[in-house]
Amino acid sequence: MEYVTAGESHGPYLTAIISGFPANVQLDQQQLLADLRQRQIGYGRGERMKIETDQVQIVGGVRYGKTLGSPIALMLANRDYQNWHEVMSVWPTGAEKSATVTKRIITKPRPGHADLVGGLKYDQQQDLRNVLERASARETAMRVAVGSLCKQFLSQFGIAIVGAVTQIGQVALSKEQLEKISQPSSAANFKREIITPIYASPVRTIDPDTAQRMQAAIDQAYQEQTTLGGKIRVVVQGLPIGLGSYVSADQKLDSRLSAALMSINAIKGVSFGDGFNFGRETGRAALDPIIWCNHSFQRAANHQGGLEGGMTNGMPLVIDLVMKPIPTQTTGAPSVDMQTHESVVSTVERSDITAVPAASVIAEAMTAITIMQAFCEMFGHDENQRIKQNFDHYLDYLKKGGLDQND
Amino acid sequence: MEYVTAGESHGPYLTAIISGFPANVQLDQQQLLADLRQRQIGYGRGERMKIETDQVQIVGGVRYGKTLGSPIALMLANRDYQNWHEVMSVWPTGAEKSATVTKRIITKPRPGHADLVGGLKYDQQQDLRNVLERASARETAMRVAVGSLCKQFLSQFGIAIVGAVTQIGQVALSKEQLEKISQPSSAANFKREIITPIYASPVRTIDPDTAQRMQAAIDQAYQEQTTLGGKIRVVVQGLPIGLGSYVSADQKLDSRLSAALMSINAIKGVSFGDGFNFGRETGRAALDPIIWCNHSFQRAANHQGGLEGGMTNGMPLVIDLVMKPIPTQTTGAPSVDMQTHESVVSTVERSDITAVPAASVIAEAMTAITIMQAFCEMFGHDENQRIKQNFDHYLDYLKKGGLDQND
Amino acid sequence: MEYVTAGESHGPYLTAIISGFPANVQLDQQQLLADLRQRQIGYGRGERMKIETDQVQIVGGVRYGKTLGSPIALMLANRDYQNWHEVMSVWPTGAEKSATVTKRIITKPRPGHADLVGGLKYDQQQDLRNVLERASARETAMRVAVGSLCKQFLSQFGIAIVGAVTQIGQVALSKEQLEKISQPSSAANFKREIITPIYASPVRTIDPDTAQRMQAAIDQAYQEQTTLGGKIRVVVQGLPIGLGSYVSADQKLDSRLSAALMSINAIKGVSFGDGFNFGRETGRAALDPIIWCNHSFQRAANHQGGLEGGMTNGMPLVIDLVMKPIPTQTTGAPSVDMQTHESVVSTVERSDITAVPAASVIAEAMTAITIMQAFCEMFGHDENQRIKQNFDHYLDYLKKGGLDQND
Amino acid sequence: MEYVTAGESHGPYLTAIISGFPANVQLDQQQLLADLRQRQIGYGRGERMKIETDQVQIVGGVRYGKTLGSPIALMLANRDYQNWHEVMSVWPTGAEKSATVTKRIITKPRPGHADLVGGLKYDQQQDLRNVLERASARETAMRVAVGSLCKQFLSQFGIAIVGAVTQIGQVALSKEQLEKISQPSSAANFKREIITPIYASPVRTIDPDTAQRMQAAIDQAYQEQTTLGGKIRVVVQGLPIGLGSYVSADQKLDSRLSAALMSINAIKGVSFGDGFNFGRETGRAALDPIIWCNHSFQRAANHQGGLEGGMTNGMPLVIDLVMKPIPTQTTGAPSVDMQTHESVVSTVERSDITAVPAASVIAEAMTAITIMQAFCEMFGHDENQRIKQNFDHYLDYLKKGGLDQND
Repeated sequence: MEYVTAGESHGPYLTAIISGFPANVQLDQQQLLADLRQRQIGYGRGERMKIETDQVQIVGGVRYGKTLGSPIALMLANRDYQNWHEVMSVWPTGAEKSATVTKRIITKPRPGHADLVGGLKYDQQQDLRNVLERASARETAMRVAVGSLCKQFLSQFGIAIVGAVTQIGQVALSKEQLEKISQPSSAANFKREIITPIYASPVRTIDPDTAQRMQAAIDQAYQEQTTLGGKIRVVVQGLPIGLGSYVSADQKLDSRLSAALMSINAIKGVSFGDGFNFGRETGRAALDPIIWCNHSFQRAANHQGGLEGGMTNGMPLVIDLVMKPIPTQTTGAPSVDMQTHESVVSTVERSDITAVPAASVIAEAMTAITIMQAFCEMFGHDENQRIKQNFDHYLDYLKKGGLDQND
Repeated sequence: MEYVTAGESHGPYLTAIISGFPANVQLDQQQLLADLRQRQIGYGRGERMKIETDQVQIVGGVRYGKTLGSPIALMLANRDYQNWHEVMSVWPTGAEKSATVTKRIITKPRPGHADLVGGLKYDQQQDLRNVLERASARETAMRVAVGSLCKQFLSQFGIAIVGAVTQIGQVALSKEQLEKISQPSSAANFKREIITPIYASPVRTIDPDTAQRMQAAIDQAYQEQTTLGGKIRVVVQGLPIGLGSYVSADQKLDSRLSAALMSINAIKGVSFGDGFNFGRETGRAALDPIIWCNHSFQRAANHQGGLEGGMTNGMPLVIDLVMKPIPTQTTGAPSVDMQTHESVVSTVERSDITAVPAASVIAEAMTAITIMQAFCEMFGHDENQRIKQNFDHYLDYLKKGGLDQND
Repeated sequence: MEYVTAGESHGPYLTAIISGFPANVQLDQQQLLADLRQRQIGYGRGERMKIETDQVQIVGGVRYGKTLGSPIALMLANRDYQNWHEVMSVWPTGAEKSATVTKRIITKPRPGHADLVGGLKYDQQQDLRNVLERASARETAMRVAVGSLCKQFLSQFGIAIVGAVTQIGQVALSKEQLEKISQPSSAANFKREIITPIYASPVRTIDPDTAQRMQAAIDQAYQEQTTLGGKIRVVVQGLPIGLGSYVSADQKLDSRLSAALMSINAIKGVSFGDGFNFGRETGRAALDPIIWCNHSFQRAANHQGGLEGGMTNGMPLVIDLVMKPIPTQTTGAPSVDMQTHESVVSTVERSDITAVPAASVIAEAMTAITIMQAFCEMFGHDENQRIKQNFDHYLDYLKKGGLDQND
Repeated sequence: MEYVTAGESHGPYLTAIISGFPANVQLDQQQLLADLRQRQIGYGRGERMKIETDQVQIVGGVRYGKTLGSPIALMLANRDYQNWHEVMSVWPTGAEKSATVTKRIITKPRPGHADLVGGLKYDQQQDLRNVLERASARETAMRVAVGSLCKQFLSQFGIAIVGAVTQIGQVALSKEQLEKISQPSSAANFKREIITPIYASPVRTIDPDTAQRMQAAIDQAYQEQTTLGGKIRVVVQGLPIGLGSYVSADQKLDSRLSAALMSINAIKGVSFGDGFNFGRETGRAALDPIIWCNHSFQRAANHQGGLEGGMTNGMPLVIDLVMKPIPTQTTGAPSVDMQTHESVVSTVERSDITAVPAASVIAEAMTAITIMQAFCEMFGHDENQRIKQNFDHYLDYLKKGGLDQND
């Protein structure tokens, strides 16, 4: 399963194509729209989110809600395009020199964004809009849509995923609350006790008190005309033993998850399990003892965050991310004009105070995509019923401790 | 440029093949052997490192020290194989049931390693050696060799890389020392002041006092029969503006570096620039102001760690890694027998107290590989002289601030 | 440069996304629409071609006609969808059991198509429409659109491509006419003498007399209620020396062209230069002598069809294809019902008498895509102006016979 | 499953690495060596084949003859290297200017080979040996070795492959004999009646009389100091329905087989089933009627050569190839000196009169590799026992005509 996206932030459409999604998977349109909505509603987001309720359409690869095995095409109209069609016209209009258009030209790059480097790399110095329209996080709407389909596929196998906000600015969950998110759990409990409250929280966190303090911190940052970063924990419950592989560097699931998550705009760090605390731990203290219990190999702890040798080990997958504060400042930032090379204040584009809640939704999606890829490599990618059979046979084999397969 | 590796830890050879390495690059055999030696010499490594001085051979793709453009083949004989040829025989010997062989069978998986999960995934429960021989970090010797060739290629363009140990167990560099490693520097200064002392240090760190304390911590862990993790900082100087791209998730250089680095055994976290501290910073404080200076776009700070929009921005690339303590304990660890499912103490394989210095060498190699990939995507991968021309023309273009190319 | 397509034949849209297309390429909308129109107008095509004039839209990656470097998104509305929206609804409608819908269910597979095998592979036996909607050649409309953009890129470098019909049923061009298509030529002459008449011919061939006889053969096949196959010659003029590579099997340009062309529906054979005649030739007779002329290495013949060692050698690229007759017969064909396993006559879907002219357009597109991929691997894929510089420097180097580069 | 190769024709070793080969496949060393021997023994091959009996070694990924799931490494020492170690030294020797070495320098490119184009592309004009050492067909020895392992894997599932010579120069099998090779057959019959005689034939063809005439033609070409091309038919029996897919161009099995086969040195054409004869057939005459027989969907003919919609349809896979005569002539060929640009006679490298029998072995290998890739995509690639289960369940499903899976 692979996907690609296209589209500019103020262009006519965002689009995506998913290849290799299995046939005969039943999809739920409401779930898809709800997941997209989650990306938009976080406290601290700017105007745009109120303008547009993203209404993604599927236009290929699905019939009567069931996947066909052929590529799945997604389209998302940018409703704001009606106000931008002259500025972002695909074909020449003759009005490229009009004031409406030229006032949108950007030549004062914003530090922390792709503006300057992208403008130099692709020779777009005359208008950095040609860079930032694509570099914008708007593109991640399509990734959330793709991830929603992956989550729906994975839920058939009892796999549940959440991306939770654990810190915004200086307000963080307590250690206890943090651990609560990632403790081993049945899918049903996990859905009820973790996913549901997070989806209901305006800042997508687990504790209402902390949520309120996060909102206050956002309000304060708004007053101070600055922005806030934060941290996210992604947890996956219900994973079978053995997704990913140790045989080659590029097969390791931690490597692939890192690539997927670090590709999200403004994410600057990824860690698994005990993460950066591992640096000061001793080997003995950081072990997850192997036990045999209920006819399966289990673990008495989860320092590793559910991965050993680049493979899932049956424990919850636990990933922590850090997001930098959005670099756009309403006051602008020290910059240089592309044409004159003189010191200027950078352009100000419409932006958010914080996007950590939105990023937690995207992280959930990127994790779902990566897990589904590893899952289908192991159990097949052609047809849903056959995948289920292959999966069930593997679980049977595991239940026997693998002892009699080759007998 | 792509590479693959093969080989088991106690098998006859490790091998690698590099595809897409440009023609006419002059390679230095001594540099290659020296880089491999670095992986072996860190303080805290076990017996094996004394057994073998790795003597990698190139057996394809190079003539008189110059690359041909054809794939480059590398071979590294495991000297220890003479003692293991019965146990690790490629073809049946008839002696598979002999005591020499059977005493090497492993059925008590070590937590924290690939043993258990790999054994289940690949149905190798009857002998987990079939897993751990490949999952072993011995494989990274080939990655260091590949990375050495990449570093030699990149050094032609003034690009210099180091992987430095910044923490072992509870002993860490001071903030000042840490910053010293990654401050902007010319390649010559960087080589003299940073790379040379790190390569001379038994624990590959910058400060001799800290190095001594790290060695003491290793000695103590040895006494306590446990192991230590730590942290690593990778720094790249001399990068041109624009490697990587924002246009698609999989083109972002931070995504690709994360994948490369997280694929190293026992690495559990990766971050760029301010890393996990970004969570509590405000947007205004975390900016890297753009300035025009000496006919180039420069930055007054480097919070971003040299990357914006998934592209190099001309500042030093700064990456921090965390490594977990090696899970193998000389006392064993709580485990379960694969056959009986009874509680046992896990197998003890020969191991190190800490491998953080070695991992810093591997991290350096993986970074070099990833940077070279992005470099060749931008400047070509066929022939060295042509790549140099393309690179020089790009630098000329940048010097003009890109202003006149399309005039 | 990579592309993917999605969409079903009677679904709402066909879509495509192109990744890695260079920035700052000026595109011509009229050329794009004209290329798509070529696919539709061939003599012998069925009703559908009259229904729809394909109006492909670009909805991402292009602004004011210039590429941005970001992915290019294409959409093509199926106008016929208004008549099919109940049958091909993406989401459940509740009317899946209505007569309108059920009369479109297909359970009698057509031999020669994907119907039966696809239905079994993806478990779609209850309605083979789920297979044939994607397996239909309608999908190639998007490939023609993608290829049109590639042709526009390549034309900047004096590279011109044509796909010509050389045989329909038993009517074939004479040997002389065949050779005329592929003789070495300047781009201007080639455009005037070869491309223009082929684009003006209702069967896309070079000789008006033969064209008339081909049309007569099509009329006769229509009378006889059968279909016709034929042959196509693809020629590329103006190629630089050195696209593709011998260093690895998957880099060989003939290998990659074969894959691209054999992926076109109903194409069953591909050959280069003398093709299947090589079997009876002697080595001496089949040589293309090397000569030095006008400051360049040239050839006195072109038996190889422009490729040596999997690389372009500066002579015209000459590829011959064979297309099987369209398997759909208006009288149906011997088949088996999917539910009852009884012998039946297969379903009849709307179809053409021959699609060889259309296939020649698609072959032209697939060749353009493949050539552009190899071209960008050699000269860069980021930015058009930089690619031109790299290309020009290479031509300068070739003019000197490569003698002084490394002096 | 993927593979890469490395190594020069007179370098120390050829090597290959196979990634993604399933665990627990039992390999047979004798079969591997026998397959390699087949590539060497064809009538009409030159001196070198008598010098070396290729003794490929496996040095990774296999233990006691069983695959481990980890990458498989192969090495093949070039025995002739002892005579070439000064000329082909990997590292500088100081003797690069000695007569032994300089007499091997090549500056007179042979038309029809990669010499000239490769020399220009990679800037190796000072010694074209740097090109031809890799462009040589010697590299295909590794592909035969890889293909042998794939054939061993596939034979577990009743899949048998042969590459047969059908024409050398002007001597061809009769139509009857040609059809005999590819008629539907059980694996056992196919092995006895087709594979065994072909493997015993000095020119790898099915009819002893034709074989004698082929040998006579080779003798005559030797007298006339020229070379011969020919044709090859590759047949695969025992394929399950559904390998490959119609959903995307790059998934079509005919596309992938074409790429694999056209990458073989000197192969200039590939066709399936009726191949280039399709051009003159009518649709009605070229159908393969679907019938239900012995609880399976079968066909009453095989014009399509076993592929529909880019997928196997259960009939024998039938592929025809054409090979051009080896361009090297013992008398040399018209060329140009790389340094002086004067007309010269090209260099003469040791060569064969014909390599069609050898190419038939390589074609068999490349087909095996491609089929195994498609097979593992469908049934899994981790572990052999699990693949067998998945395969068996699919056959069960097919036997029921797929009718009750989703009931």
